[in-house]
Parts: sequence; C-alpha cells; structure tokens
Amino acid sequence: MPTTTAAYAAPSTGAKLEPFTISRRDVRGADVSIDIKYTGVCHTDLLQTSDGWGPGLYPMVPGHEITGVVTEVGPQVTKFAVGDRVGVGTYIDSCGQCAPCRAGLEVYCEKGCTPTYNAKDKDGETTQGGYSKEIVVDERYVLRIPDSLPLDASAPLLCAGITTYSPLAHWNAGPGKKVAILGMGGLGHIAIQLAHAMGAEVTVLSRTLSKKEDGLTLGADHYYATEDPETFAQLAGTFDLILCTISGALHFDQYLNLLKLDGTLINVGAPDNDITMNNWALIPARRSYAASSTGGMPETQQMLDFCAEHQIKAQIETIEMQDINDAFERLDRSQVRYRFVIDMTKFQA
Amino acid sequence: MPTTTAAYAAPSTGAKLEPFTISRRDVRGADVSIDIKYTGVCHTDLLQTSDGWGPGLYPMVPGHEITGVVTEVGPQVTKFAVGDRVGVGTYIDSCGQCAPCRAGLEVYCEKGCTPTYNAKDKDGETTQGGYSKEIVVDERYVLRIPDSLPLDASAPLLCAGITTYSPLAHWNAGPGKKVAILGMGGLGHIAIQLAHAMGAEVTVLSRTLSKKEDGLTLGADHYYATEDPETFAQLAGTFDLILCTISGALHFDQYLNLLKLDGTLINVGAPDNDITMNNWALIPARRSYAASSTGGMPETQQMLDFCAEHQIKAQIETIEMQDINDAFERLDRSQVRYRFVIDMTKFQA
Repeated sequence: MPTTTAAYAAPSTGAKLEPFTISRRDVRGADVSIDIKYTGVCHTDLLQTSDGWGPGLYPMVPGHEITGVVTEVGPQVTKFAVGDRVGVGTYIDSCGQCAPCRAGLEVYCEKGCTPTYNAKDKDGETTQGGYSKEIVVDERYVLRIPDSLPLDASAPLLCAGITTYSPLAHWNAGPGKKVAILGMGGLGHIAIQLAHAMGAEVTVLSRTLSKKEDGLTLGADHYYATEDPETFAQLAGTFDLILCTISGALHFDQYLNLLKLDGTLINVGAPDNDITMNNWALIPARRSYAASSTGGMPETQQMLDFCAEHQIKAQIETIEMQDINDAFERLDRSQVRYRFVIDMTKFQA
Repeated sequence: MPTTTAAYAAPSTGAKLEPFTISRRDVRGADVSIDIKYTGVCHTDLLQTSDGWGPGLYPMVPGHEITGVVTEVGPQVTKFAVGDRVGVGTYIDSCGQCAPCRAGLEVYCEKGCTPTYNAKDKDGETTQGGYSKEIVVDERYVLRIPDSLPLDASAPLLCAGITTYSPLAHWNAGPGKKVAILGMGGLGHIAIQLAHAMGAEVTVLSRTLSKKEDGLTLGADHYYATEDPETFAQLAGTFDLILCTISGALHFDQYLNLLKLDGTLINVGAPDNDITMNNWALIPARRSYAASSTGGMPETQQMLDFCAEHQIKAQIETIEMQDINDAFERLDRSQVRYRFVIDMTKFQA
C-alpha cells in the first residue's frame, strides 16, 4: 500500500508554497524508493508554479534536482541496493520502446517522457517532485551519485548539469573549440566548468562584469559584458558554440553574429515567448540556432561521472524547506550565487 | 582599355529595366572574358532592383546565373581556354586568404565575397551582372559547364542549383534520409531532383497540390499541401531535413514540428523581415534551424558535375532580353514553371 510523505506544495497558481502530504506508490517491479536528502531549486520550479509552462496541476510539489539514499528496492531491481547514493532528474518515465528511448535519449521519447512533477504518470497519477521526503522511481530513471561528489552540491547537476553537459558534448565542445557561455546563473556557472574540463576555450558573456572573478575562478578564459556594445564588435565571428542559458526571449541577431563559419547557438533557456531573428544573421556564415532539453539517462550518468572526475559541482546556498518562498523571490531577482539547494534532512512534517 | 557591352539595367529603385551600356575591364592576369549566352532570372534580381536587400547601386544590371563561352583569357589563366563552355554564379571575387576562402568556401569569405552585381569590386567599380552580352571574371570564380549540360537549362544551376545542393550535401541528404522540400519554385524544383539523385526519400511540401504531377515526375516520393492542416498532423516528427526554399518570412513552429530527433530545417530563402519561432518547437527533439548562402567554388563545380551525371537541369521558359519586365511581373506572381532564362544570343544593342 502507498506510503505518505511530507512535502511542500503550491496549492494553486502563483500561491506561496506550504506544507502538504503526498502519497508515494508501493515499491514494485523495478522501483527504487529514495530517502531524499537534497533538492536543488531550479528556475523552472518558479515558472511551473506560476503556470509559466501552461496550466499546472495543483497542488504541485516541485523539485527535479534530487539526491538521496536508497531505502528499498523492488524485486526486479538490478542496479541499486539499499544504502546507495542516488539521484533523480527531470523525468521519471518514458515509453522505453521508441527510437530515442532505445538510443538512450529518453528525454526525447516520441510519446513524451514523464516529468518528475507537474505531469500525469502511466497510472494516471499526478507526479510530485523532490520538495518531499521520499520518492519512488523505476531504476531506469535513477542515477548513481559517485562517491566523490557531495549529495548537496551535486543535486543541481541533475538538471542544470545535464542541461548544459548534453549540448556541449553533442556539439563537440573540446580542444580547439571556442565556446561562449551566455549568462552566468544556475546553469551558466556549471556550464563554464564543464566546457573548461572538456578542453574548450571558454568565454563568459554576462550582462555586467559583476561575476567576472567567479567566472574566471570556475575556469573561464575570457569574460565580457553584454551591456557594452563594444563586446559585440570585438567578438564578431569568434565562436564555434554559444550556449545560451538565459531564460528570457532575446532577439538573437547580435549573438548569432558572434559565431564563426558553421557555428551553432544552442538555447537551453525555455522562454515562453517567441524568439525572433533575421535570416541574414545566419546566412553569411551558415550558422545554426538549436535548442535542447536535459539529456538521456546514459549521458546523465556520464555527466555525473565526468563531474566526479573533474570535481565539478554547483556552488550552492543551502536553505531549509520552510524558506522556499523567500528563495523563490530571490531567485526571481537573480539574487543567488548560484543555486539554492534545500536540505531535506532538516525537514520534518 | 575597357570594352563596352550592351546590357539591361534598372535605372532606379523599382523602375522598369531598360537598355543600357556598361564597360567591362580589360582582361588581365587570371581574367577570363565570357560571351554570355544565357542568364537565369532569379527572384533576388526582382528583390534587389526594388531595394529589397537594402539600397541598391543604380543603374543596376542584374543577373547571377550566367552561362557562356570564353572569348579571351589573361596571361595567368591556367584552367580555361578560348571556346570553353563556362558559368558564373553569385559572386566574382573574395579575399582568397581567410579560413573559409582557403577551405574553398569563398561565399563565406570573412571579408565578404563580392556579389556579381549590385556591389563594389576591389577596384571600387560597381559590379554589373549577366543581363549583358559580356563579362570579365577572375578564373577562380568561373565554373566549367560539363558538355552534357545545355547552356540554357544549366544557367539556373549557378544560383538555384548550388543554393540547394550545398545545404543538402552539407547536412548529409542521402540514402536512409527523409528530406522535405518546402516550396516548389525556381529553387524547389531543382532541389527535388538533387535530393532524389543523392538517394534521399523526398517529400514536397507545397501550398497546394497544383504542381504535384510535376513534383513526382522530378523525383519526389510524396507530395503534400501545406494549406491542408492534416498535413502537419500526419507528418509530425518525420523528416531528417527540411529545405525551405520560400522567400517569405514564415512562422516556423509548424514546420519545425515535422522534424524528427536531431533534424534540421535549413532556410535558403532570404526574407528581409524577422522570422519567429518558439523555442518549444525545437526543444522536444533537439531540432536546429539553419540558413545558408549559395556555395563555395569547388562545391559549385561538384554540383555541376553531379547534375551532368544525373542529367539534372532547370525546367525553363526562355525569354528575350526586352521581355524582362513582363517576366519580372510574372515572377512576382509566381507564374513561371519553373525558371525564366534570358536568351542573350538574341540580344543586340
């Protein structure tokens, strides 16, 4: 029979989050039950609890940057045992049969993967995320957290990490490549570390120079302010890749113009407004504009192992569950360096 | 000393074209002088004589789909001899030194290649195109027309052909790939033949089914009308590549949704208005939106040789020079199947 677990939920659109009790299904088949230790606060938590991605399912328990410890495993589980350090990211199911699923790109499941919260699972139940004490997930959608990564500072890797690792790897960031990271927030500050560890020459493009010292410490080779028009003249035709981590809808022409021949701007922000560009910003150098989601399960595990090898983690500010509404307000004003993580070990119902 | 040659020019923005005399430079160095036999009428001729690409240089002699016969060669010419059948496309010079030029991608010259007309050449002279009896061009920017291709129906290959061949080749159209050609006009009707000859499964997306029979004859496997909403439901997630040959600024979401995982929509139209899309049309399948220009000199020669091998040519309606204004009007109403070509052999000053 289902167990109940303490959580924090948004009762309705835009309302403050408050204590709430949810039920988790019995551990069955290939399920793993996880005692949640830490949950990162993603900007999309803020968006979804305000219907920024369309009408939400309420009460909504956000959270898809989850780390914890296995407390129970189903009879068909082969990869995990009680006591293992594990993580759960942005989705907890997919069809498993389509070409993307078979290729280990479950996030691109042709039937749509099942988001960790604010969605309906195959039982018709509303999925509820990591702002809770416990979660039950099929082992295919569970990651192993390497021993050398701390559970708190690795939680944001489950979304912010894979969202930036996947496009950097897919579009071949590496030695000899010039990569720009546009925006230095929750995603950007991890992307700098990843691109640097992959061997690329990394440039940060941030609105101001206020985070320059942090950027260089994290591995950036160069740092420019986009509020300075000179930046766009100086860097025209420079980059192989630009990874845009900004969630707003920009006019992209001036950024596209920074790409060299055959360069690609990948936007991992998810603005709800349309984006605009002029075809002439692409034509003169056969440029591409692309977007990607988080990543498949195998590459998410690769990302965690890569982060362990290079000691890459999020710079975090740990908060307690009851402080989430203040954290949302600060996040909305970009007042965090660089990711809030909720310490769920201190949360009691 | 320069020679004079008969031409047709637009005296000012949007004015009817009229007879005009231009001068061509003396043949020098690696120059080739060409007796122009045929010139294709590109939609951009119409655009540029109406300042559709910004203020034009008048009087303007359009024409960048040129075929003819060599009449004189400079002392440094090594590739051509008097009597050779040759072609000139959309540009007649580039810096020759930058990375794209060294890679044989002169159209992407970092200093900007020199368009065949409506531009300033390195002498500061206004370039004048193929609506004229003669042209003098450095041999690097001259193509060889294979013997098995007719000079009239191959003229459009110099722009419409390479503009579609280059992206199809660059993005790997070939066996096992599903390619959609969006729009069946001057570019589209050649693109169908090219993609088919490359071995791809070809689908035409045209506004109506009025050109369906032609499309299938040219090599399309499937043909759908975009005025039918059912098309977009039926073909969702189908294509590896979509080549958009439409010059207007579309909202691209519904077309992007027809791409499968990692698919790319390449827009070779050059709308002067901004284009719009929603990032969510890309994210769910890691799609890309790209644009490209015509092509480099080596690949343009490859394209001509490929067309000779597969007997690919434009379907043309031949006109005389003095009928150009009527042809422009019909082109503006898309009333040509599928390319006007001016017979310059009949044009006397």
